[in-house]
Amino acid sequence: MIESPEKPERRPEFDTVGDLHELAVLDRIFPLLPVADSQLLGPGDDAAVLAAPDGRFVVTTDMMVHGPDFRLAWSQPHDLGWKAAASNLADVAAMGARPTGLVVAIAATPNTPVSVLEGISAGLRDACALLAPGCGVVGGDMSVSDTLTLVVTAFGDLEGRSPVLRSGARVGDVVALAGNAGVAAAGLRLLFEEGVDVNGNPDAAAAAALRAREPRLVGMQLAPTPPISSGVDAAVAGATAMLDVSDGLALDAARIARASAVRIDLHRDALGEDAESALRGGEDHALLATFGPDTELPDGFRLIGRVLAGSGVSLDGQAVGGVLGWDPYVGWDGRTG
Amino acid sequence: MIESPEKPERRPEFDTVGDLHELAVLDRIFPLLPVADSQLLGPGDDAAVLAAPDGRFVVTTDMMVHGPDFRLAWSQPHDLGWKAAASNLADVAAMGARPTGLVVAIAATPNTPVSVLEGISAGLRDACALLAPGCGVVGGDMSVSDTLTLVVTAFGDLEGRSPVLRSGARVGDVVALAGNAGVAAAGLRLLFEEGVDVNGNPDAAAAAALRAREPRLVGMQLAPTPPISSGVDAAVAGATAMLDVSDGLALDAARIARASAVRIDLHRDALGEDAESALRGGEDHALLATFGPDTELPDGFRLIGRVLAGSGVSLDGQAVGGVLGWDPYVGWDGRTG
Repeated sequence: MIESPEKPERRPEFDTVGDLHELAVLDRIFPLLPVADSQLLGPGDDAAVLAAPDGRFVVTTDMMVHGPDFRLAWSQPHDLGWKAAASNLADVAAMGARPTGLVVAIAATPNTPVSVLEGISAGLRDACALLAPGCGVVGGDMSVSDTLTLVVTAFGDLEGRSPVLRSGARVGDVVALAGNAGVAAAGLRLLFEEGVDVNGNPDAAAAAALRAREPRLVGMQLAPTPPISSGVDAAVAGATAMLDVSDGLALDAARIARASAVRIDLHRDALGEDAESALRGGEDHALLATFGPDTELPDGFRLIGRVLAGSGVSLDGQAVGGVLGWDPYVGWDGRTG
Repeated sequence: MIESPEKPERRPEFDTVGDLHELAVLDRIFPLLPVADSQLLGPGDDAAVLAAPDGRFVVTTDMMVHGPDFRLAWSQPHDLGWKAAASNLADVAAMGARPTGLVVAIAATPNTPVSVLEGISAGLRDACALLAPGCGVVGGDMSVSDTLTLVVTAFGDLEGRSPVLRSGARVGDVVALAGNAGVAAAGLRLLFEEGVDVNGNPDAAAAAALRAREPRLVGMQLAPTPPISSGVDAAVAGATAMLDVSDGLALDAARIARASAVRIDLHRDALGEDAESALRGGEDHALLATFGPDTELPDGFRLIGRVLAGSGVSLDGQAVGGVLGWDPYVGWDGRTG
């Protein structure tokens, strides 16, 4: 699919995807990818084989598309691989499962430097190593496209436990959160305000300076660190419901409320100084869970609310209304950044 | 991510992806998708749960990108869903596994009619029903993109058997094929020759007329029907090596030859009238397998060659050289069709 024109001087550090045959690109990125402990058969055949010791496996998929989901002026290649892994690992963790493996499909423009794919691969590797040790990449696909696109599909092992659903919250349960709420959204707001040039377009130098000044906020947006191991901890402790907070506490708590036919009442004092960002801002990939009233919360979880009779989400008893989520990418024309 | 502007007259048949909220789009396509027999937990939580009865599962992923992989003037939406399913099912079958489930990620432009996604969904459904009964869609993701992109990840059950690898062919084995060789390539050549307007650009009316005239050739290119159940049949019969023919017999036989450290000698008489298309043309997703010399070939397989000592691929003893595969999409500029 990819042409291999002759070049007078090969300088591998400047090779693009279009310069090399697909196999040559894969030769450069495979050594970077982490091997999964659960891998029984890896790349090289038509499919991989992964262990599923308890006779079931958890599966989720999430795509990241240039434009709606990231700007190349803001995200380093390493960030893209990291975030694609982290957001999928969080979905596995939210079921109470231990992540075991990923498959990765990448479509890149022909003029994409191979070094970008190497950076994405290193990001996948480092996210697995830090967030879910033992998880690795068991297979993938590569294609050319006008739009840089990453699709990660992630697998997990329930280790004999029942999956933790959104529908299990009961009146009287406590609501607890592991991880950040509103930090990634605050980072994104900063990027839109200050990571831009004088015309308001995403700017790499401005974003780099901003990230150096606000590493926590910007870093949580570009390369989030969800509390992956807390998913298993919650399941072991008996969590009655759980999900990962990708669209803000208000919207995601409403999902548990609807699935469980209950009301989720959040405590404003527990949401930190920027309660509005916590409620409306997504992409931290925190784990929101409910536990029986007498359950000792696992390390990493903090109490943020109660499960009441009724429906919807309230804050200290007051219904939370309006647009529940927040998506600043809406309306972007897809041609810049 | 998707805006919901008010419209004076709602006409659902003309709704685009950009007109509706993501959830409203999903409400329209979910009922079309087939439910997998192996599904323990379906859409609605952060991840699905699928059965893996023998403690392992087969996994493969394959992306289809507008431009390199299909033209909208040629492929109906139903074809796109069908082909995305069929090509992934063939990879599962080539391991000797029974397909159990798919997850599907779709990125569509905002102006894509929802009816296109409904057509893709119906194609996924019909391909599962015809090619791999019991297999269904267990989850997915949807996004907006400048480039219509489908990514299917497919799972399979080895039912206690060892996976059939590319590396198991032994000197003295026979080489057998289930399915077509060169038919999809002949169809694609016809489309490039006759499915175009006077300027050589893909043309929907010309392609439709051509397909009516040459349903087998064009249909095998746009909506291939790989012999999925033959994969399990081959494994049960003791196939020593297998893969699905996606890039032509010459290139794919060379993959078995290299992995197994043998030579694959193909019989020209067994390749039909258009041996060149069979050797060089891909996308039929036939199953190429090797069996011990005394094995009775399973129904659907026909003898097409022998495994010899040496390396590479030969045709009646003559080495097959040159460019092994064939890809007419190379060089397409990605902006038309």
